[in-house]
Amino acid sequence: MIDTWNSLPKPDSEEIRQRLETAHSRLFAQQMQMKENRLPVLVLFEGWGAAGKGTILGKVIRNLDPRFFTAVSMHDPTEDERRKPFLSRYFTQIPEAGHFEFLDSGWMSEIIKDRLFGLLSAKEYKNRIGSVRRFERSLTDNGYLVLKFFFHIPKKEQKKRLQLLLSNPHTAWQVDDYDLWENKHYSKCRDAFDTFLEDTSSSSAPWYVLDARSRKWAELQVVETLVTAIDIALKNHALTVPLIQNIFPLQKMPKLAEIDLDKTIEPEAYKEELKRLQARLRTLHNQAYLRDIPIVIAYEGWDAAGKGGNIKRLTAALDPRGYEVHPIASPQPFEKSRHHLWRFWTRLPKTGHFAIFDRTWYGRVMVERLEGFCSENDWQRAYNEINEFEKELTDWGAIVIKFWVHIDKDTQLARFTDRQNNPEKQWKITDEDWRNREKWDAYESAIDEMIAKTSTTYAPWYILESNDKRYARIKALKVVIAALEDALGNA
Amino acid sequence: MIDTWNSLPKPDSEEIRQRLETAHSRLFAQQMQMKENRLPVLVLFEGWGAAGKGTILGKVIRNLDPRFFTAVSMHDPTEDERRKPFLSRYFTQIPEAGHFEFLDSGWMSEIIKDRLFGLLSAKEYKNRIGSVRRFERSLTDNGYLVLKFFFHIPKKEQKKRLQLLLSNPHTAWQVDDYDLWENKHYSKCRDAFDTFLEDTSSSSAPWYVLDARSRKWAELQVVETLVTAIDIALKNHALTVPLIQNIFPLQKMPKLAEIDLDKTIEPEAYKEELKRLQARLRTLHNQAYLRDIPIVIAYEGWDAAGKGGNIKRLTAALDPRGYEVHPIASPQPFEKSRHHLWRFWTRLPKTGHFAIFDRTWYGRVMVERLEGFCSENDWQRAYNEINEFEKELTDWGAIVIKFWVHIDKDTQLARFTDRQNNPEKQWKITDEDWRNREKWDAYESAIDEMIAKTSTTYAPWYILESNDKRYARIKALKVVIAALEDALGNA
Repeated sequence: MIDTWNSLPKPDSEEIRQRLETAHSRLFAQQMQMKENRLPVLVLFEGWGAAGKGTILGKVIRNLDPRFFTAVSMHDPTEDERRKPFLSRYFTQIPEAGHFEFLDSGWMSEIIKDRLFGLLSAKEYKNRIGSVRRFERSLTDNGYLVLKFFFHIPKKEQKKRLQLLLSNPHTAWQVDDYDLWENKHYSKCRDAFDTFLEDTSSSSAPWYVLDARSRKWAELQVVETLVTAIDIALKNHALTVPLIQNIFPLQKMPKLAEIDLDKTIEPEAYKEELKRLQARLRTLHNQAYLRDIPIVIAYEGWDAAGKGGNIKRLTAALDPRGYEVHPIASPQPFEKSRHHLWRFWTRLPKTGHFAIFDRTWYGRVMVERLEGFCSENDWQRAYNEINEFEKELTDWGAIVIKFWVHIDKDTQLARFTDRQNNPEKQWKITDEDWRNREKWDAYESAIDEMIAKTSTTYAPWYILESNDKRYARIKALKVVIAALEDALGNA
Repeated sequence: MIDTWNSLPKPDSEEIRQRLETAHSRLFAQQMQMKENRLPVLVLFEGWGAAGKGTILGKVIRNLDPRFFTAVSMHDPTEDERRKPFLSRYFTQIPEAGHFEFLDSGWMSEIIKDRLFGLLSAKEYKNRIGSVRRFERSLTDNGYLVLKFFFHIPKKEQKKRLQLLLSNPHTAWQVDDYDLWENKHYSKCRDAFDTFLEDTSSSSAPWYVLDARSRKWAELQVVETLVTAIDIALKNHALTVPLIQNIFPLQKMPKLAEIDLDKTIEPEAYKEELKRLQARLRTLHNQAYLRDIPIVIAYEGWDAAGKGGNIKRLTAALDPRGYEVHPIASPQPFEKSRHHLWRFWTRLPKTGHFAIFDRTWYGRVMVERLEGFCSENDWQRAYNEINEFEKELTDWGAIVIKFWVHIDKDTQLARFTDRQNNPEKQWKITDEDWRNREKWDAYESAIDEMIAKTSTTYAPWYILESNDKRYARIKALKVVIAALEDALGNA
């Protein structure tokens, strides 16, 4: 792909000057349209060391309103970042609606470096490519404009520039060992770049390889590409996106109506079991901590099904420094203005830690679907987006467990009434709970669809029969324990 | 203070058992009252290594609803955290309204370690103590309950526990070199602890020294103290807090009415000056980056005064990887439920970077004051809280510059009308702008008071005369350049 670099003949400097002026003023005007249309634009600058990425970035944004863009220079991942999934530091950076985000180097550089220095096997490299492709597609599917520029210069040009920088004490600090290494191993790097560009070019998030020998010319290519792409994106606003076929292994799950809710446990047996299982979980958490295994537990369930109490029996067994419970309410404005999974990417545990979600990313295919908070295309697409999200987590090494805390309609009514009549519990019941109850059947069929479409082998759903809350608590502990034993290899 | 550790006689174990039960169930019930009253509770656990902080923390929270608390085990600051002010990683951790935050070791440990290992001079130590006292007072003044526990065990007991932990391969990892060093230098550490406890005990955020030889007894002391303190805090809800005298050096500032707004610059001179000053600023930013100096610039001003354009002329001179512009709107729910300065603590620059705020923490004493979004006591207290906040920034080494972008009433009217009549600018004008304009006089007197009370020598206000926007832009650049030259010692 790099061979396309000088396919476009460079205009003379007067023409460049004129076209730059036009392009910049169009870009300036587009900002307001982006804001009105809530279009988020992610721009990635990659390329050779000393190809001028930073300088040209400075020129591209010179007319933009600083309130509507962020420019970030990515560094090598810190120790803390290495304790999160690979995509995490990029996903958490995505722009909000109506804003630009410019990244000076990003996932491409990180992957290429790791590959060149042997930190990634061929298989791991392939997984990374898969992650990147899914990441970019998930962004564009959700209305993001993703533009990727590769700044190309020939070997000799790079060498000349590096020497020039090094010869001046004010600029010498800009050159690091990697830049020199890159120039020395130019053709090896070129091959690696080329493979990556091929592997990750797609029609919705294409690469643009730039002739970066002339700075003005490179700037013009960037700004004109931006302007055209934004115009198209504005026209395609709220596009309906094709649905992708599920490629993840699913396991067969029963429908909710088929679940036997009569399962119970005797109070005495419960006490003993609870104590025994909590002790076992405590030991396993310790081992998982030492082995750096992250655990993600998702709780969904009917109102009054007993999620809170269930979570409490689990956390009671855990070292409080090793877990966090995330209660998920409806999204706040800063969350709504980003990809629907963004607020979960920002809440992932560090390796060795538990993150327990009290309601989850499945809101998209339940409440947001049924209340019309997103389009039909949005929630239909979400099954796959969620399967991909959970795949990233398990590829990273996480254990992902999803609980549906289940009760029947009569049990819910009894618990609602009890809450209503008990002053200490009244805070737990709201008008919304009653309204949701009226939609029980619509919810049930949405939940059946959700469980059927997202019960992957790597992140399965477990139904907790919770007409007897104690039974559900014991079952949850057993599921978590079995998953940990399995991961730790000491079942 | 440590001598108070066993002033309370230890009850027999049956009494402890009974009292624990009572205290835990009261604590459980208090959670809902905390939620209703939006009371945030910050609990700090400090003390000797192996004194049982972690274990007891686990017991204290065992009945609490995991949605209403967070427990964090603080580690030594990371490299990134060391590029922020000392208090930053604590301030950003404060709980939100209605929630508990438990910290297992915090600012006390960090300061003591740095002091014992000679990383802090006596003067720096004193500054840290001042920071801590102001931090805790600012929290309690803003309705936070702050409880600090010191877990005390005698030298022999600590030695015994460390040996026990080390003898078991499953627990040996819990002991680090510092624990062993601490036991070896017990009396030196004890003196350091004691001094710190004395220095930072206050009636609003007192220390509780616990006899931690018996775990059950220590747990009881913690839970009973929590319960009592929460009861009192709930009774004191929305207390009016005494105003503290300003202790920071202020400089005399003119009133807005005295400002000469006729200053102008010729278009030709403007172009030349702008170019020259931007080039100079670019060089200085580079130097500040290499010298790790952070720069915080706060923009406030009348609607249509030209803040946006002014900021743009500044950022045009900066490397986009080295600054961020933070547009500040009205706070979102997660921001409103924390200390009013929290959302600025979370937006501080790294060393070497610029953070430019388009509207700022001064909203508290302008719009929040005039629209009644906070109580009179709140905004009156805020002058000092803000002076303290900016003092933390300059003590950390930051340059803090505050601009009031000033125009007169006629100029505003002319610009409003122009915006109204110009389709490309209409998005810039809202009904709220017209409403604010009606309150010009009230705003003017609030602004005069604000400038008079917060123009400290270390973080002064600069009035930018912006009837001629060009004049204001040149002046802003000159102010920033002078401040940088001053800090870099090359004026």
